This record gives sequence, C-alpha cells and structure tokens, in this order.
Amino acid sequence: MTHNDAPGSKIPMVVIKRLPVYQRYLSELQKKEVERISSGELAAKIGITASQLRHDLSCFGNFGQQGYGYKVDDLLFEVNKILGLDHNIYMVLIGAGNLGRAVLSYPNFLSRGFIFKAAFDQKQPPVNLNIEGILVQPVRELESYLKEQLIDIGVITTPAANAQEIADILVAGGVRGIWNFAPISLKTPENVVVEHVHISESLLVLSYQLCHKGFGRLPVSY
Amino acid sequence: MTHNDAPGSKIPMVVIKRLPVYQRYLSELQKKEVERISSGELAAKIGITASQLRHDLSCFGNFGQQGYGYKVDDLLFEVNKILGLDHNIYMVLIGAGNLGRAVLSYPNFLSRGFIFKAAFDQKQPPVNLNIEGILVQPVRELESYLKEQLIDIGVITTPAANAQEIADILVAGGVRGIWNFAPISLKTPENVVVEHVHISESLLVLSYQLCHKGFGRLPVSY
Repeated sequence: MTHNDAPGSKIPMVVIKRLPVYQRYLSELQKKEVERISSGELAAKIGITASQLRHDLSCFGNFGQQGYGYKVDDLLFEVNKILGLDHNIYMVLIGAGNLGRAVLSYPNFLSRGFIFKAAFDQKQPPVNLNIEGILVQPVRELESYLKEQLIDIGVITTPAANAQEIADILVAGGVRGIWNFAPISLKTPENVVVEHVHISESLLVLSYQLCHKGFGRLPVSY
Repeated sequence: MTHNDAPGSKIPMVVIKRLPVYQRYLSELQKKEVERISSGELAAKIGITASQLRHDLSCFGNFGQQGYGYKVDDLLFEVNKILGLDHNIYMVLIGAGNLGRAVLSYPNFLSRGFIFKAAFDQKQPPVNLNIEGILVQPVRELESYLKEQLIDIGVITTPAANAQEIADILVAGGVRGIWNFAPISLKTPENVVVEHVHISESLLVLSYQLCHKGFGRLPVSY
C-alpha cells in the first residue's frame, strides 16, 4: 500500500481504523496518570512497529518530539479532535430488542460525547418505557422526530428485513451517518456515511488463529 | 509495513482481518450463483486494489489464473479452509443479558460451523430457560461442564467486573479461544487466543468520516 503522507492528502482506511485503538490506549494511559510515552512503547501496546505508528500520526500533523516521545494528554487531545470527539454527537437508535438494548447500555459512549437522544421500536412500546434513561417511541414517530431534532447518527439494530426502510427514513430526515448492525448492505446516497458492524468478523479472525496456532504453519505478524 | 509473502511465512494481521471480508463477499457471490470473478472486481467490492488482493491471497497459496480470475466456489472453499470453517467449532457463552442474548440470536453462526453448546449466567436462570434452543445454566456449573465437554471457544458477554474470573475458569477448563465482549483486557496464558470485540471502534471510524466529510480536508483512500 502506498500513499502520500502529507497532511491534507488521502488517509488510508487502515490508518483511520487504528485511530480508535490509539484513542483507547491513550485514554487508559491518561487514567493511569502516565504523562509521557515513546512511540516504541505505544506501538508495542497496539501491536504495530514504532515506524508504523509515527507514519500513521504523520498523516495528521506533527506530534511528539524526536527522543522525547509523546505527551499523553496532548496526543489524546489531538486524536480526539481528529476523531471528532471534541464535540457532542447526537444519535437515535432504531430497534430496541436485545442488541439495541445492549448498544444503549454499552458503557463509555457518553464520556466520549456520543449522546443517545431517543430510541424507536417497531412494536408499540409500553408507555414511558425507558432504557438507560432513553425513552423508547414507536417507529412511526421517527420521521416527525427527525424534522424537529438535529441528529448526526442513526443506529440501526433492527432485523435485516426492516433495515433499508429505516435507513431511508433516516436519510430523508437529514441524518448523515448510519451505524448499521443489521446483517444487510444498505443503499444510501453518496453523502451519507455508513459503518456496518460485522460482529462475526472477529470470530472468524479468532477461528483462524485457533486453527493455525501450534502448527507453526501460518503464524501471525503484526 | 513489510513482510515476506511466501506461503508458510508470517502473515500480517491486517491481511488476516481481511479474510472474513473476502469470505462474506464470496458467500454473497455464491448465493447469487456468480461463477467467476476477476481480482479487480472482487477488490473493488472490498475497497482495496487488485494488487493488494492478489498479494493477500498469495500469502496462502496460488489461487486464480492470470486473465481468468477466480472461480467463486473454489476460492470460497479455500478461504473457508484457511479460516478453519471446514469443521465445526464448539462454543459456550457466559453472560445471558441483552448482549449475550443478541449474540446467541445472531444469524449465520450455525451455517458457518459455529455451534453454541451451552450458555451460562451469574443469576440462577429459570428452570429450562432456553435462548434460541440453548439451555442457560447457572455459571457455577461452568467448571464441571468444561470437564465433560470439548469446547473450542468461550464467549464472554458478562459485565467487565466478572470477565477475568470467567476467563480463568475457561482457561482452566481447556478452552483455547476467547471471544471477549467485556470492556476489559483479559490476562491469559500465551497459548490462549483472545479476540476482544471493541464495538465502539467502528462508531469512532464513523465519527471520523462524518467529521471530515465535505470539508475535503482528510479524504479517505482504501
């Protein structure tokens, strides 16, 4: 893979996908009140090389100093800004079944500025049903809700059969980001960003590693 | 990133993580009864270059023919074999709350050979409680269960506070793969493979894309 690493040029998706990993480790270091970390130490935690790490970060600007490493607070601040975590992001969730409830209850969304404003379900929810303090409304209210509220991200945790219809309502309502847990590819306009969560992908990676571990046949390198 | 791409050498994790994506697209093509696909077409679907795709696959052997492309059935068969999907993989799940129930109900596990044998929960489950046909047992039975059954993968969907204790019981019971949904890093021996599912990572990737879309500042390249 080749790319130009000057800030402002195209950033490879593989680099962007590592940003949340940096964010997680830096948050952990900050919690432990670690002040400074070398690129070698941080890279080792993440399972990449120090030069990969420096290269990744150089896509976004100049951080750290030769021979000094990174100030944890400063680098986390920058990574958060790059990820858009320096401001609140408003979300609605559609599909309040087991998966939807699990997502609503997932810890640490709020601390990163992700705020669930409302949840919707196909079934008529009991009056005033709250999950984690979020009111569950009937899905027929979604369209009018979106006319009144500015929502950044719609989270789809419905069965596959309902997901496209919900995506269409979200897009018509001005939502520009969809976090899709339904096992179906959504058709959306170009100006809408869809992140599809394929939960089973990491299970296949686990299966691969179990299958090839101990045989010395296809060891993994990071 | 540099690596030696001769079969039998170390395979970069980034390549392994793309295998489930190949698997998914090839399965879709097979369902649509597509017989053959060029590396260019398949790569475009996945969002990488044709040379990356050929390079990825060359890590595992020689598939496809110059100017002819890949036979979908054959390549899927090979990818399934590489991923260890050519035989059944037996799993138990611990933590039958919303997330656990969502994972147990997740479609397409069975068709890929992943078989849930049992589920366990901290709370005393009602007698004969079944989720998707899987009996939920009290977690104190886990240790003795593992003495009697050969289990490949333990799926942890408990709160973070219980996850390490459960991991210890799984490891002591001979389980060599852990699929961890709890937001905590597990300590396990070297011969145990742990895949940690960080659900929020893709939300951060979505946030990044929303934040930089339309500004033309940090466009994504694949």
